Amino acid sequence: MTIQKVCILGAGTLGSRVALQAAISGYTVSVYDIHEKALDFGFQTMKKILSQLEKGKLLKEAQEKILSRIYFTTDAEKAIQDADIVNESVTEEVEVKKEVWRKFGKIAPKKTFFTTNTSYMLPSMFAEESGRPEMFCAFHFHDVFYSRVVDIMPHPGTDPAMIPMLEDFGRKLNQVPVLVQKENPGYIFNTMLLALIGAAGKLLTGEVGSVEDIDRSWMVNFHMPMGPFGILDSIGLDTAWHVTKNRTDSASVAFAKHLKSYLDQGKLGEKSGEGFYTYPNPAYKSPDFIQ
Amino acid sequence: MTIQKVCILGAGTLGSRVALQAAISGYTVSVYDIHEKALDFGFQTMKKILSQLEKGKLLKEAQEKILSRIYFTTDAEKAIQDADIVNESVTEEVEVKKEVWRKFGKIAPKKTFFTTNTSYMLPSMFAEESGRPEMFCAFHFHDVFYSRVVDIMPHPGTDPAMIPMLEDFGRKLNQVPVLVQKENPGYIFNTMLLALIGAAGKLLTGEVGSVEDIDRSWMVNFHMPMGPFGILDSIGLDTAWHVTKNRTDSASVAFAKHLKSYLDQGKLGEKSGEGFYTYPNPAYKSPDFIQ
Ligand SMILES: NC(=O)c1ccc[n+]([C@@H]2O[C@H](COP(=O)([O-])OP(=O)(O)OC[C@H]3O[C@@H](n4cnc5c(N)ncnc54)[C@H](O)[C@@H]3O)[C@@H](O)[C@H]2O)c1
Ligand SMILES: NC(=O)c1ccc[n+]([C@@H]2O[C@H](COP(=O)([O-])OP(=O)(O)OC[C@H]3O[C@@H](n4cnc5c(N)ncnc54)[C@H](O)[C@@H]3O)[C@@H](O)[C@H]2O)c1
Repeated sequence: MTIQKVCILGAGTLGSRVALQAAISGYTVSVYDIHEKALDFGFQTMKKILSQLEKGKLLKEAQEKILSRIYFTTDAEKAIQDADIVNESVTEEVEVKKEVWRKFGKIAPKKTFFTTNTSYMLPSMFAEESGRPEMFCAFHFHDVFYSRVVDIMPHPGTDPAMIPMLEDFGRKLNQVPVLVQKENPGYIFNTMLLALIGAAGKLLTGEVGSVEDIDRSWMVNFHMPMGPFGILDSIGLDTAWHVTKNRTDSASVAFAKHLKSYLDQGKLGEKSGEGFYTYPNPAYKSPDFIQ
Repeated sequence: MTIQKVCILGAGTLGSRVALQAAISGYTVSVYDIHEKALDFGFQTMKKILSQLEKGKLLKEAQEKILSRIYFTTDAEKAIQDADIVNESVTEEVEVKKEVWRKFGKIAPKKTFFTTNTSYMLPSMFAEESGRPEMFCAFHFHDVFYSRVVDIMPHPGTDPAMIPMLEDFGRKLNQVPVLVQKENPGYIFNTMLLALIGAAGKLLTGEVGSVEDIDRSWMVNFHMPMGPFGILDSIGLDTAWHVTKNRTDSASVAFAKHLKSYLDQGKLGEKSGEGFYTYPNPAYKSPDFIQ
């Protein structure tokens, strides 16, 4: 099978990025969302990213050519028509995902492969809903342009032949494919990132170190541009809280409570202008932070 | 108090690095070890590092001037004479440290401040032995030249006035001081690094991902030169096993067993030529590793 047309479900943060990269790689792309406004958001996001890519050197013409390969629609039938593969990036709620897969399972051509970009759920939670579990696999991106890992995570019913196909497709999308051999919430990278963040949270709530000294330790020793709390601010403290609050060990409980105290003050991280740091000029970006 | 003379106990990997940096910063330095051979190792280590510093641009003369500020001795009295501060980097064994501190507690001038570079023990474990617990604090380096965090970790009996003094001294040693507000094995950075490595170990022994895919995930998403298994190879699998085997959770037990299987084959990581990768050209350094 040669992939020619890619269908993206959900025109949010991730859906618009995956769709844009697919168009850059030369595929024909449909982007489906239930909200017209979301489609508009997706289009604006793509234009913004395109203007920043290659340090802003991409010619207007080239940008337009890329965008011309993408069409936006709230019409499910139109979106799925002729699609060789779907990547679903709708809201991270199991009922929403199930509903979407029930719908597209019915109307998709027989040839269409199904993939989900879920961050913390498992493909087996909605593979059956799609009606073709053997053609269903998680295909999970990070931010597509800076962090280029794509996780390939089959569920027990996935046809193993999907794996090399997705590895190849991932490379064509300028990603580095990684095989998650069995279902694991958080795949590989997010599992490690959460362990790091959990340790940082425990150091903070246990009053071992300050936000700044914890970040400084990570940044200086590893020559990294941010530490765990800077990363948390960029992920969003609301997202971080949702993930942390489901854990039952005492350190996670304490850290979830700590995160909640930020949310209660409207501090969601970078997107709200304040989190552990204040934006747009957080202390950790200042040159004297690590002196 | 102005620090002029620094006394380093132990001329091994870390002692020789701290001593060298102190000399580079202009201090007079004595290096004490019980073994003549260790002193020679320390001197050779310093010469090697000096020749690589500033991309090898440091003039021979400048190198000699730096080395001339350091004297090496197996005579404890000579080493401690006039010392304003001691940093102890002897073998990581509690009985060895206790004995060293009993000895130097007796012969050191009254003015001398005591610090320990222990990686996983706590200063309170041998502060009393020194006879001057209020002048005793952990002052813990990483690798001094690439990873420049220095942890300042008082024990409950440390005079708080030592903290700003050590912060200032740390900066003079070209380090980034970080305050560990209460005793914590592994300080701040190592605590987070161990959490990351623990998560990587669990992904491996749980057969979620391969060594390569786990490292790749970390390297690609964070633009880092190595992942957790590359880091483990450079730390040494023996050291990693010593730390892991004391933990009792099932993931650590499984990973300690896994590490032990490498040790049993003589695979200690980079220093033995083989660990998770083979050296001097480990796969993760190859450009096609992340494609
Ligand atoms: N944000 C990230 O960093 C990130 C990274 C990797 C994966 N993901 C995953 O991608 C998915 C989307 O995340 P996001 O951050 O883009 O969320 P988002 O909120 O930005 O976008 C979700 C989009 O889904 C649309 N939607 C909701 N219900 C729908 C339906 N029934 N049919 C079609 N569209 C519908 C919404 O209108 C919205 O535009 C989630 O599963 C998330 O876990 C997110
Ligand atoms: N290796 C690292 O990456 C690292 C990093 C930070 C801190 N540390 C800490 O520094 C200390 C030393 O570690 P290392 O890696 O340099 O070990 P090492 O084995 O390279 O050196 C230890 C030295 O101590 C000497 N020694 C042993 N008993 C002595 C005694 N009674 N009096 C004087 N010298 C004695 C030994 O001869 C040897 O030269 C440990 O506490 C370790 O935890 C190590």
